[in-house]
Amino acid sequence: MYEVELKVEADHDEVRRRLTALGADPLGTVEQVDTYYEHPVRDFGETDEAFRVRRETDDEGTETRVTYKGPLVEESSKTREEFETGVEDGETMERMLEELGFEPFEAVEKRRERFACEGYTVTLDTVAGLGEYVEVETEAADIEPAREGAVALMTDLDLDPGEQVRTSYLGLLLESRDE
Amino acid sequence: MYEVELKVEADHDEVRRRLTALGADPLGTVEQVDTYYEHPVRDFGETDEAFRVRRETDDEGTETRVTYKGPLVEESSKTREEFETGVEDGETMERMLEELGFEPFEAVEKRRERFACEGYTVTLDTVAGLGEYVEVETEAADIEPAREGAVALMTDLDLDPGEQVRTSYLGLLLESRDE
Repeated sequence: MYEVELKVEADHDEVRRRLTALGADPLGTVEQVDTYYEHPVRDFGETDEAFRVRRETDDEGTETRVTYKGPLVEESSKTREEFETGVEDGETMERMLEELGFEPFEAVEKRRERFACEGYTVTLDTVAGLGEYVEVETEAADIEPAREGAVALMTDLDLDPGEQVRTSYLGLLLESRDE
Repeated sequence: MYEVELKVEADHDEVRRRLTALGADPLGTVEQVDTYYEHPVRDFGETDEAFRVRRETDDEGTETRVTYKGPLVEESSKTREEFETGVEDGETMERMLEELGFEPFEAVEKRRERFACEGYTVTLDTVAGLGEYVEVETEAADIEPAREGAVALMTDLDLDPGEQVRTSYLGLLLESRDE
């Protein structure tokens, strides 16, 4: 399965109104703190991979997940192969990774408000240090039709898929540091 | 906290009788399959570290834990610093590690019958390809008194702490391959 995802920068109030008009189903809000790690010898910036520990907090408490993202397999929709699993104790996992030579190099903090809409997940992200973004995503074995559906839904939400932001929040944060 | 552990090779039937006489409390039996990984660039054989994924199966099902063991900090009792946490999906964790450049190089399979006895855990291990062993272990902030207690308990079990096997099952298996 591939993750197909389109993202644009957009004011959330407008999009929330369109989601309500389309009958979208609110899925709740979470806070996420992602710590990205450097590989002991590989330059993830060059290999286009990412490895992170995510702590997600909702009303029920905090959960930790570890994720590896492979290089892009489909440029236009930012599609990557991804492996992710939950871990019992996030702090221990972080200590272990550091002992193995992985070093934390950037943290991304955001508030995510999710909706289910026409088979897609629409997420309103407020990212610390960056601003407001909207993501439309789904998982699919077949990339192209999933991408076309995401473009159609973006248009229904009065968003312009042509303004797609292909850079990850991590990348945007790193770029903003360089400025 | 440090893990203090003494291990000897010993016939289990004798030890089980002594454990019963000492009023030890049976804690059940599990099967463990440990997969040890090579670091992408560090030689764990030289740095005296280990990194493994353990699948443990009991009556309730299978659980996966990931463990990093640091180099020895106290030679005589095999004491190491250790980080361990449970993971939701062992197979995904293994795929992720392989993508990051970790390669599986040896598997250790054993049946472990555990008892609680005088503040220690006594484990009767039957290790595939090696034979029968007994481990006496505990966790302690203060190494020396914990080690002295382990020696005393070994003696009470009619085992000879002087015959301590300092090599891990992994090391013993690797040695047996070289013979």
